[in-house]
Amino acid sequence: MYRTFTCGELRIAHVGQEPVLAGWVQTIRNLGAMTFIDIRDRYGITQLVADENTTIELKDKFEKLGREFVIQVKGIVRERSSKNSKIPTGEIEIDIKELTILNKAAVPPFTIQDDTDGGDELRMKFRYLDLRRETVRKNLELRAKMAHVVRNYLDDLHFIETETPVLIKSTPEGARDFVVPSRMNPNQFYALPQSPQIFKQLLMVAGFDRYYQIVKCFRDEDLRADRQPEFTQIDCEMSFVQQEDVLNMFEGLTRHMFKEIKGIDPGEFPRMTYADAMENYGNDKPDIRFDLKFKDLTTVVKGKDFKVFDDAEYIGGICVPGCGEYSRKQLDELTEFVKRPQVGAKGLIYAKVNEDGSVKSSVDKFYAPEDLSKWTQIFDAKPGDLILMLSGEKDRTLPALSILRLEMGRLAGLMDKEVFRPLWVIDFPLLEWNEEASRFHAMHHPFTAPKPEDIALLDTAPGTVRANAYDLVINGVEIGGGSVRIFDSELQAKMFKTLGFSKQDAENQFGFLMEAFKYGAPPHAGIAFGFDRLASMFAGLDSIRDVIAFPKNNSGRDVMNDSPAEIAQAQLDELCLSLVAPKQKN
Amino acid sequence: MYRTFTCGELRIAHVGQEPVLAGWVQTIRNLGAMTFIDIRDRYGITQLVADENTTIELKDKFEKLGREFVIQVKGIVRERSSKNSKIPTGEIEIDIKELTILNKAAVPPFTIQDDTDGGDELRMKFRYLDLRRETVRKNLELRAKMAHVVRNYLDDLHFIETETPVLIKSTPEGARDFVVPSRMNPNQFYALPQSPQIFKQLLMVAGFDRYYQIVKCFRDEDLRADRQPEFTQIDCEMSFVQQEDVLNMFEGLTRHMFKEIKGIDPGEFPRMTYADAMENYGNDKPDIRFDLKFKDLTTVVKGKDFKVFDDAEYIGGICVPGCGEYSRKQLDELTEFVKRPQVGAKGLIYAKVNEDGSVKSSVDKFYAPEDLSKWTQIFDAKPGDLILMLSGEKDRTLPALSILRLEMGRLAGLMDKEVFRPLWVIDFPLLEWNEEASRFHAMHHPFTAPKPEDIALLDTAPGTVRANAYDLVINGVEIGGGSVRIFDSELQAKMFKTLGFSKQDAENQFGFLMEAFKYGAPPHAGIAFGFDRLASMFAGLDSIRDVIAFPKNNSGRDVMNDSPAEIAQAQLDELCLSLVAPKQKN
Repeated sequence: MYRTFTCGELRIAHVGQEPVLAGWVQTIRNLGAMTFIDIRDRYGITQLVADENTTIELKDKFEKLGREFVIQVKGIVRERSSKNSKIPTGEIEIDIKELTILNKAAVPPFTIQDDTDGGDELRMKFRYLDLRRETVRKNLELRAKMAHVVRNYLDDLHFIETETPVLIKSTPEGARDFVVPSRMNPNQFYALPQSPQIFKQLLMVAGFDRYYQIVKCFRDEDLRADRQPEFTQIDCEMSFVQQEDVLNMFEGLTRHMFKEIKGIDPGEFPRMTYADAMENYGNDKPDIRFDLKFKDLTTVVKGKDFKVFDDAEYIGGICVPGCGEYSRKQLDELTEFVKRPQVGAKGLIYAKVNEDGSVKSSVDKFYAPEDLSKWTQIFDAKPGDLILMLSGEKDRTLPALSILRLEMGRLAGLMDKEVFRPLWVIDFPLLEWNEEASRFHAMHHPFTAPKPEDIALLDTAPGTVRANAYDLVINGVEIGGGSVRIFDSELQAKMFKTLGFSKQDAENQFGFLMEAFKYGAPPHAGIAFGFDRLASMFAGLDSIRDVIAFPKNNSGRDVMNDSPAEIAQAQLDELCLSLVAPKQKN
Repeated sequence: MYRTFTCGELRIAHVGQEPVLAGWVQTIRNLGAMTFIDIRDRYGITQLVADENTTIELKDKFEKLGREFVIQVKGIVRERSSKNSKIPTGEIEIDIKELTILNKAAVPPFTIQDDTDGGDELRMKFRYLDLRRETVRKNLELRAKMAHVVRNYLDDLHFIETETPVLIKSTPEGARDFVVPSRMNPNQFYALPQSPQIFKQLLMVAGFDRYYQIVKCFRDEDLRADRQPEFTQIDCEMSFVQQEDVLNMFEGLTRHMFKEIKGIDPGEFPRMTYADAMENYGNDKPDIRFDLKFKDLTTVVKGKDFKVFDDAEYIGGICVPGCGEYSRKQLDELTEFVKRPQVGAKGLIYAKVNEDGSVKSSVDKFYAPEDLSKWTQIFDAKPGDLILMLSGEKDRTLPALSILRLEMGRLAGLMDKEVFRPLWVIDFPLLEWNEEASRFHAMHHPFTAPKPEDIALLDTAPGTVRANAYDLVINGVEIGGGSVRIFDSELQAKMFKTLGFSKQDAENQFGFLMEAFKYGAPPHAGIAFGFDRLASMFAGLDSIRDVIAFPKNNSGRDVMNDSPAEIAQAQLDELCLSLVAPKQKN
């Protein structure tokens, strides 16, 4: 062992001891007679000091040192004259007696401290240096602790952690698969799992009863800030349960994590139907840290010769407390905001409630004070509040209003990162119509069970069938999702048919699952949590990248080791593959 | 919830209660007036009973039931008249009041019981049914428990569990990589990791200090019984440690697992150099549950006109206690055994020590009784012992003798599966000469540190350089292996040169690692355990397949879902790939 103590361990009680420490040079301050060196490792920072009596040999070594050199020192612990109460080792320092340079370090391309001077690109390229920064490492430590807490909780409840294969069969349903050519089976391919969905269902058929796994999943999708080609799920499945049991079980897990990791009790998780979420928040993952619920004014505001409203299928709005003082400029900016293509509204109608209760709106010439007063009643608006309204086709206006609502939440400071408001969204539609493919797609996945009372509608009005599917939403982020599964092979076959699979295709792709269901499949249901997202939320981060040790960039590249990369012709030959020149993009 | 109790939970104390159970029909016995049904789930088996007073409705349902039907029953717990002490629920039975068939089951292709009638192929195809058998499920439960014990042990010692990427850069050194074509980076490929080696070393450069991960690894190798294309490692790395620290740390982990999982204290782990292992056991992973150590007789037996020995470079043997009574036939069989191409010896010389101390050998005409007596002294052979000797070129005879030793251990009943003898094999050679490639290969991997005192030999006699590399061997199986790593970029560059990498190739493949080493790499070392092998050893199995939920066969195929499989032309097009017809095998 190169050390007898870590750099975060020594206290006043160790004074007089002769420890050996090893770590990185954080700073060197040469004050002439005295030299101070801060030595750092994962556990902390300790101050080393050499005074005027230091040997020439040691002084020579100090000359050679630079930031991030790896050193080993032996010395005597003594009490500091000027203590540093900010760090746990701040009461002591080490009087250096011996110093060994274990490894040199070139000057790092950015400073290794919390407020580094390195830009994103540079820090990604030198990720191993970025990970040295305490803020970044703490995120990874938090992630590890979360995994530990999850595993112990589920182990205690008799979930069996079971590894499922990574080299599986490609199923074109859903997102795009990454594929892996097989050398031993030429011209055939494995796929990497988008989730262990089928395997965990087979484990239920196998009688495992309770399964979980913290598992890597893969999706070959065009990437966004919060997406990575490989990501991690907490994947769970249970037998002989109904939806209510799953919600309770995993509400329990989530509450346990909040308690253990954040020291927070987030209270009972409210339930909201998908229909209510869409109607009241325009969104299937509402952020309920703040209210600003939509009010539907469609029937109220028509018939006053205001053509925009009269022609609209839907008119809805929100009431933002305390924003009644917004200036003309601020309101113009909001109008520009909602007109951006990403929001897509045609315009914004506002109404301010003055201190005296009177209302000033952008449509005063169409609406009499008593009309406007009716609006304030609907919104229960108070003096100083701001009512904002959008109108148009309902299925375009609701999402626009949702974006406006979030923007107002942000502007009004209602999105505190240390406040957590979990929510179950339930009763999702089973199917969604895909215009392009001109067929229904499974909203969750093809194994999701319809609500029993809606099964008859599969033949007559498939689009209205509700599923026993649920999402766990925290602060407007979808953290988990799952469903009760179909466990009857006939219903599963019907589902495939509804999704436009030919009997042959269903057989080719899922034949073994339907076969498995013939041998006594139990009722079962499950859920998967996005572990990266959950960790980044717990860490108070906006992106999942900083809870991933070696993330990829938006082109799916690891810029640190410059992969993916070309492979040798011999490798291609062995795999019976040849490259095709990519099409030029226009 | 479909149940109020599991099928393994009810006891005499529950008599009178009205539980609801759910599970699979294990057996149905219709005795006319009485019907007995055993209902099974993961937790156990409970006997259900219906007597002559049962309703017609229930009796009708019994008629429909078959093996593996999934049922839900409600009834009253009562004491059994004839108790079954073999199962924990054997004192009670359930008087059935209601029964619901939750799912039908086709007759399974084999019986779901410990001694099933299903062959290997069939059980692999219907793996989800094979997993229902208690013996198989117990193996997976054991594996899950082992992972749990490992994680808690390492977490307590401040190892940070860190996920490393699965989509990485292909490095042709070592075994063959599986590759993954990138759609977003056409004509470029990711590789799947053979181990997280480089990433865990980068985590040490990043100051993580202690890392572990239970992680899937991938090797595109031709498969053997104990190999799978994807397998799981317990992967660990530590900073500021020497070899001795690593051995002690992971001896501690291994001893902890034996204690927690098997209730065994395997004692201190002996250490043996690679050179001693080869000389005394002909093998770098000796099974030391039994002795049968080689004796070198080369100098002793020459010069007696026995041409076979006189011409041999090496003559060695083992002494097997208690096998002196072997018949002519048994000795002939052994001779045939060693002459098999897999063993490759030319013949077998034996000497039996009779009860009176005299010796009977197959070469009596060349050796006088006093010569043979000298042999018995060398082997410390007792009356009733059997001496077996092989001769020839040393590097062919030692391995042959090793196989003979193991065979004799097996025949003499010295390989008890419930006895565990761990061993550290240390001081492996750094390099091994590859005849085919006409260059040195890294015996462990290119990042392994040579022993400091041997570094000078890298220039003059590379083949003699010893590495700070170690294997954990248990009962003749390599369970883990690791090394102290090179942490100096110049030494690493020299190592790549010794391995025949051009500067350009080393730069292309490992440039980022050597770059990383320039910024202050700490001394570090690590180890990886073959988790599948360790689990199969703890479970008392010969193959790793039964500790893997969904294993692949020897062609790398999952016969359950018939993968790998062809993919659609559209998928190939998106990936800018085309298929090449495989070459016909001769």
